[in-house]
Amino acid sequence: MTTGVRRRMGVEERRQQLIGVALELFSRRSPDEVSIDEIAAAAGISRPLVYHYFPGKLSLYEAALQRASDDLAGRFVEPHEGPLGARLLRVMRRFFDFVDDHGPGFAALMRGGPAVGSSTTNALVDSVRQAAYLQILAHLGVGSAEAPARLELVIRSWVSLVESTALIWLDGRRIPRAELETQLVHDFAALAAVSAAHDEEMTVLLRRALMDEPGHGPFSDLAARLLNLAS
Amino acid sequence: MTTGVRRRMGVEERRQQLIGVALELFSRRSPDEVSIDEIAAAAGISRPLVYHYFPGKLSLYEAALQRASDDLAGRFVEPHEGPLGARLLRVMRRFFDFVDDHGPGFAALMRGGPAVGSSTTNALVDSVRQAAYLQILAHLGVGSAEAPARLELVIRSWVSLVESTALIWLDGRRIPRAELETQLVHDFAALAAVSAAHDEEMTVLLRRALMDEPGHGPFSDLAARLLNLAS
Repeated sequence: MTTGVRRRMGVEERRQQLIGVALELFSRRSPDEVSIDEIAAAAGISRPLVYHYFPGKLSLYEAALQRASDDLAGRFVEPHEGPLGARLLRVMRRFFDFVDDHGPGFAALMRGGPAVGSSTTNALVDSVRQAAYLQILAHLGVGSAEAPARLELVIRSWVSLVESTALIWLDGRRIPRAELETQLVHDFAALAAVSAAHDEEMTVLLRRALMDEPGHGPFSDLAARLLNLAS
Repeated sequence: MTTGVRRRMGVEERRQQLIGVALELFSRRSPDEVSIDEIAAAAGISRPLVYHYFPGKLSLYEAALQRASDDLAGRFVEPHEGPLGARLLRVMRRFFDFVDDHGPGFAALMRGGPAVGSSTTNALVDSVRQAAYLQILAHLGVGSAEAPARLELVIRSWVSLVESTALIWLDGRRIPRAELETQLVHDFAALAAVSAAHDEEMTVLLRRALMDEPGHGPFSDLAARLLNLAS
């Protein structure tokens, strides 16, 4: 029985090692361009042995994507302490670290395509978006059942803005990422402010969320920059 | 020879009719759920005759999507007259008309998935995004070769915000579309203002673009609402 347990552990360890090797390769190039032979070589095992653990490239890709999704969703978790702007900025830094590490694979996945557009991969991408949405909602002190439609719109559309900004950044990296991290926090404030300008309930929510902003935080920074622009 | 020409015209007309029928069906439901049998019945011809014109459902779907893409790209074309805010608002109205007419098909396409994620469909979606980008750029009086990276980012990320807002709207239609049309014009101003707050070149561009804004246009409306919010 001990041997049996050991053997099963070995199988799981080998699977985890293969997933790690595959994630590394799928991150650095478009998944279309990565072959099972290459994954086998990088893992130091034979091609048939890879197939022993995973039925094919898609299942290995999906397992790698599951690990990456868990990692990415975790980066939106942030202690509920201190001003909101500073929290969002830390989340954006961790998000861009992830994008930086997984650039070509992230771009291939988000741009879609035959090799990466399975229903499983779409579900994983959606699960990360949902995790990000729920985290931001929690930071605003709103339960998911009671979120007004306009607040849901602001958060979900901001999450999509974060994605598209990262994709545009990856295409040539012509703007320093630190600038984009701050700008996306400002974009959140701007989108929320536009929504609040249209809706009383959003005004109350926004005022409460920004109550603790310090004079030197990213939101105050934006207000100062905008005032300077208008003058 | 005349007969030959006529027969070729007839083939093209039949193809165009089939594309129209297919687009209607693919717009109202997810393309996965539409069968060739249904398209044949709606067109009043036999299933084998559909296959005479199109090798399969994917090619018919791609032809329908090509027509929808041309239509959608055309809705971003707007005379270069009058204030920018009013132009953008007219574009947003035509865009939401399109989304309203093609809801389920639009949602299925933009959310991706096995049936709709071919490289041809991705290229068509990208061509509409590119057309939208170039139109907005032209309205700002900037040539595509000379567009600064930050301006490209603002426009492209706003286009993605428009897409995601439409998708969220389609999911339950809980916010009146007229409100979202105005809000997206305000979002453009807000994203541009955030970028201008970070960059001198963007400040100059934005000031020039907003020079002709009237006291009662959507941008002035936003400024008034934001001032009201801050007080």
